[in-house]
Amino acid sequence: MAINRKDVLTRTAVGAVYVLIMGVCTLLSWWTTLAAVCVTAGFCAWEFLSMAKSSGLHPYRSIGTVTAVCIPLAMALNAGGTHIVALGLAVAFLGGICCLLRFFVHEQDGIVDVAVTVFAFLYVGLTLGSFLLLRDFDPGLGGGVMCLLILLSIWGNDAFAYLGGSAFGKHKFAPKISPKKTWEGVICGMAGGIVFWMLIPLLCPNCGFSYPYAALCGVLCGILGIMGDLTESHIKRSFNCKDSGTLMPGHGGMLDRSDSLLFVSVGAWFLVCVLPVFLQAPEVIAWL
Amino acid sequence: MAINRKDVLTRTAVGAVYVLIMGVCTLLSWWTTLAAVCVTAGFCAWEFLSMAKSSGLHPYRSIGTVTAVCIPLAMALNAGGTHIVALGLAVAFLGGICCLLRFFVHEQDGIVDVAVTVFAFLYVGLTLGSFLLLRDFDPGLGGGVMCLLILLSIWGNDAFAYLGGSAFGKHKFAPKISPKKTWEGVICGMAGGIVFWMLIPLLCPNCGFSYPYAALCGVLCGILGIMGDLTESHIKRSFNCKDSGTLMPGHGGMLDRSDSLLFVSVGAWFLVCVLPVFLQAPEVIAWL
Repeated sequence: MAINRKDVLTRTAVGAVYVLIMGVCTLLSWWTTLAAVCVTAGFCAWEFLSMAKSSGLHPYRSIGTVTAVCIPLAMALNAGGTHIVALGLAVAFLGGICCLLRFFVHEQDGIVDVAVTVFAFLYVGLTLGSFLLLRDFDPGLGGGVMCLLILLSIWGNDAFAYLGGSAFGKHKFAPKISPKKTWEGVICGMAGGIVFWMLIPLLCPNCGFSYPYAALCGVLCGILGIMGDLTESHIKRSFNCKDSGTLMPGHGGMLDRSDSLLFVSVGAWFLVCVLPVFLQAPEVIAWL
Repeated sequence: MAINRKDVLTRTAVGAVYVLIMGVCTLLSWWTTLAAVCVTAGFCAWEFLSMAKSSGLHPYRSIGTVTAVCIPLAMALNAGGTHIVALGLAVAFLGGICCLLRFFVHEQDGIVDVAVTVFAFLYVGLTLGSFLLLRDFDPGLGGGVMCLLILLSIWGNDAFAYLGGSAFGKHKFAPKISPKKTWEGVICGMAGGIVFWMLIPLLCPNCGFSYPYAALCGVLCGILGIMGDLTESHIKRSFNCKDSGTLMPGHGGMLDRSDSLLFVSVGAWFLVCVLPVFLQAPEVIAWL
């Protein structure tokens, strides 16, 4: 496939604005990260539920979107504390109760509409919420640089995959789910993503990463990013939609742009915040 | 509507076996309660997902059922501790990841199948899990008696509503959702349920209930029980099913029998374990 210059330019310009906003918000502070995450979660949930609506279901878009925004917002009530996850989940629980109450009074609704709404705000809210947990690991500049590098690894992966695939792509990667993806693009993308992970031990020595661990994280998060991308393609296909929205010309909707972020956030949070704690706990070492 | 004696006898006999097993398990210990809750959760999730399957969806029955059973099981890992809810939710999260992985490798599946599966194990697992939290309030005999009285209030409500409605029922309560329900039955049921709640301050003085608070709990949980019942009818109607299963002749499936329990468990846990703590916390008093 030849590189289409106009397509690359539009995609790059729109992507640059998004990258600038997300990058600056992430770098500045936990609170600006929170703002960026809430806006992203709201758009993603709305687009997910709009796709569901276009496929003939009757999901509760307002309840789903508000809950998706409120999950990260609730986390802010106890930022840095030990109840940060519990507060997000409590909001999700309340969102579920709101859906059931609406279901209860609307006799024409199906329980599938409730299920899709609940799934949408959990899928978007919990995954993006884990990016806040990652940012909470070190609320200062060091954590900001780390989170920015993780975002850059996702964007780098996307950009290198697109460019590499456009230039050298020959062998199809997942022809039925995502026909444009090639093995050459995937490999270029993985390499691009790993480079940014390898910068973490160099630029954020306080995060306690070794170079081999950073490389391992790069590989695992690269795989998660591709899985997020393919899952999103699969979701769109199951709703018979080409793009999740039209917010970002050249990219589609916010959900199209954030598909890898959803999965990588959870994986990176686990690799950066959870696994090292477990590996140092004596009772876990004793199990191994 | 005249009382059908054979129907009442079958219903009573099957109900008695169920009541005996659930009652004894609840009274004996936290661990026997756990066993009863796990079995109930497994049957309920399987029946919910079977109804979804019969309506043309392709939910993941095995993953959904196993996750619904494992949510209360995980709670047992830290019974009496502070991580009991977190462990249940962690299992729910893993169940969601399993669903997404299956979705990822089965290109013919729709995201609606994933959403319905996730909703099923959350709906059943979290609500029944809150009955375990209620039993955890006092793992000794006192807590057992309290939980048994709460179960008796649900069953008493059902039985009195059925008998009262059969004997005196004239005015339809919710003709479109549950055509057999009458206002007379609902009022008899509520009265029957409140009686058992009023026994809690008498038989379990350690639970710290006053008679007015017990009566309030009886009214609120009576309303929740009716909501659970109507929600279940609505779910069955949206799946075009008459009964959720055939496990319990005269009652339908386990989900038909447990519909009120799901909602009342959450409400009773909130009223018994959460609200009194909040009302005594100085910062909450200061807000009011």
